[in-house]
Amino acid sequence: MFYLIIDLLGLVAFAISGVLAALHKRLDIFGVFIIAFVTAVGGGTIRDILIGINPVTWLQNNVYMYTIIITVILALIFREKLKYLRTSLFLFDTIGIGLYTLIGVEKGVAADLSAVMCIALGTITACFGGVIRDILCNDIPVIFHKEIYATACVAGGGVYFLLKLLPIPEDAVFILSIIIVITIRLLAVKFKLALPSIYKN
Amino acid sequence: MFYLIIDLLGLVAFAISGVLAALHKRLDIFGVFIIAFVTAVGGGTIRDILIGINPVTWLQNNVYMYTIIITVILALIFREKLKYLRTSLFLFDTIGIGLYTLIGVEKGVAADLSAVMCIALGTITACFGGVIRDILCNDIPVIFHKEIYATACVAGGGVYFLLKLLPIPEDAVFILSIIIVITIRLLAVKFKLALPSIYKN
Amino acid sequence: MFYLIIDLLGLVAFAISGVLAALHKRLDIFGVFIIAFVTAVGGGTIRDILIGINPVTWLQNNVYMYTIIITVILALIFREKLKYLRTSLFLFDTIGIGLYTLIGVEKGVAADLSAVMCIALGTITACFGGVIRDILCNDIPVIFHKEIYATACVAGGGVYFLLKLLPIPEDAVFILSIIIVITIRLLAVKFKLALPSIYKN
Repeated sequence: MFYLIIDLLGLVAFAISGVLAALHKRLDIFGVFIIAFVTAVGGGTIRDILIGINPVTWLQNNVYMYTIIITVILALIFREKLKYLRTSLFLFDTIGIGLYTLIGVEKGVAADLSAVMCIALGTITACFGGVIRDILCNDIPVIFHKEIYATACVAGGGVYFLLKLLPIPEDAVFILSIIIVITIRLLAVKFKLALPSIYKN
Repeated sequence: MFYLIIDLLGLVAFAISGVLAALHKRLDIFGVFIIAFVTAVGGGTIRDILIGINPVTWLQNNVYMYTIIITVILALIFREKLKYLRTSLFLFDTIGIGLYTLIGVEKGVAADLSAVMCIALGTITACFGGVIRDILCNDIPVIFHKEIYATACVAGGGVYFLLKLLPIPEDAVFILSIIIVITIRLLAVKFKLALPSIYKN
Repeated sequence: MFYLIIDLLGLVAFAISGVLAALHKRLDIFGVFIIAFVTAVGGGTIRDILIGINPVTWLQNNVYMYTIIITVILALIFREKLKYLRTSLFLFDTIGIGLYTLIGVEKGVAADLSAVMCIALGTITACFGGVIRDILCNDIPVIFHKEIYATACVAGGGVYFLLKLLPIPEDAVFILSIIIVITIRLLAVKFKLALPSIYKN
């Protein structure tokens, strides 16, 4: 129940980031909804397809679809007010990527994949919704050239497997790893850290 | 047999819309063929992958590939004449999205998914070939900002589940729902209806 | 073992082509890595998903991930020197598409698909990593409008099924078909052959 609430908060934050991107491109209502939808569930969908979980998660439970529909409607009605929510949205988004990363990691573990692949799946779960959003909006994905985002996911996934070696309860490992992702992301934004752009001379 | 013919007419219309988009971008023959192919089968492929139908439909029956190859060859030979076929192509396309929507809905029903998810799958089947076409051509997908297109699919899918509650034969439900999609689409184009674009001030 | 080495050489060449594309777009290290990764494994991943092989190949063996990580690190360190390797890289790439095509064809055969579909899968395996690379970099895929690339794959796949009709050992058929792909590609580049671009007047 607790996880579901955080999961849905992350979903809401991701969906709103999709709404904002779609508004910026002046899409119609349907376009706004689709962009919100793929931003929110895209990462998990790619993960499910790569592992072979089918039907994919969002097809199996209407709560994702309904949450996104309601989020989009409210976001459109109160779109003038969204700027005042910037901090809350950033927090939801950050909690969302933390949770999504570890959900992805654990799905990889459940599919008996190696630690490296589980970390990759966690990162994909957290980041690739945004990648699809940017491709549909005809932009180069923002995570490829701005801020520490995926790096936080990779670090959180790595910590998960390190902590698992210690005599710590499973739930604590899960939550501590999420906190690592969130902390790195918050520090990166606070101190404007970004990976260096390396370009050819 | 009757359905297969309509299915192939839809495939032809979708493939030609791909050819026209690719010609506009001055691609080579191979590029034209690929764009035509993904436009025609892309929506159904995404649906199959999401549900977990594999190998995907077009891999299981050569008729799709051959139909598209012949369509592309003829479309290229007679490309100067395509403008005179505009009305026929629009009709095929409209019949195609009607049929594709309901095929997608019924595949969802066959996979025991909820009504909402079946409608989503129907809409994906009808619309996402065009979305992939536009992404490959480096455009923002046209259905996100022009005309009633996906909305007609959603409405047709909704009507399907309403009609199913009534004592009507299955075939009639299927065909009536297709007619709903086609009618909404035709009215939208005739009266130049479009969803409002909502942009942030 | 012999095949694995060629497979990894192809992987390295594809990954470096991804690095070069990403550097050109001034992405950060993570962006460079992702582009390199999808360029190298994207074609095989789409093939696996279409056929229904899951988890997809690269999830099942860490060697792909490690090879790409090492390639990206070395490519970034020696990025000034990459231009001197142009010929070697072109050769690896060409050998890579030859091998990837035939690996794809044989996966289709193993899944009991028709010859036409096996050839399509071989072409997808060899070419679609580059297509995803270009989409992520917000370019129209280069194989749609430049040089004989996919055509070489299709020809190699066709020759494979022709040779299979003759009393030739399986391994010889496999290698001869790869040589066909490589030869056509080399001749096309040497004589600057390209498919005609057909555009609407």
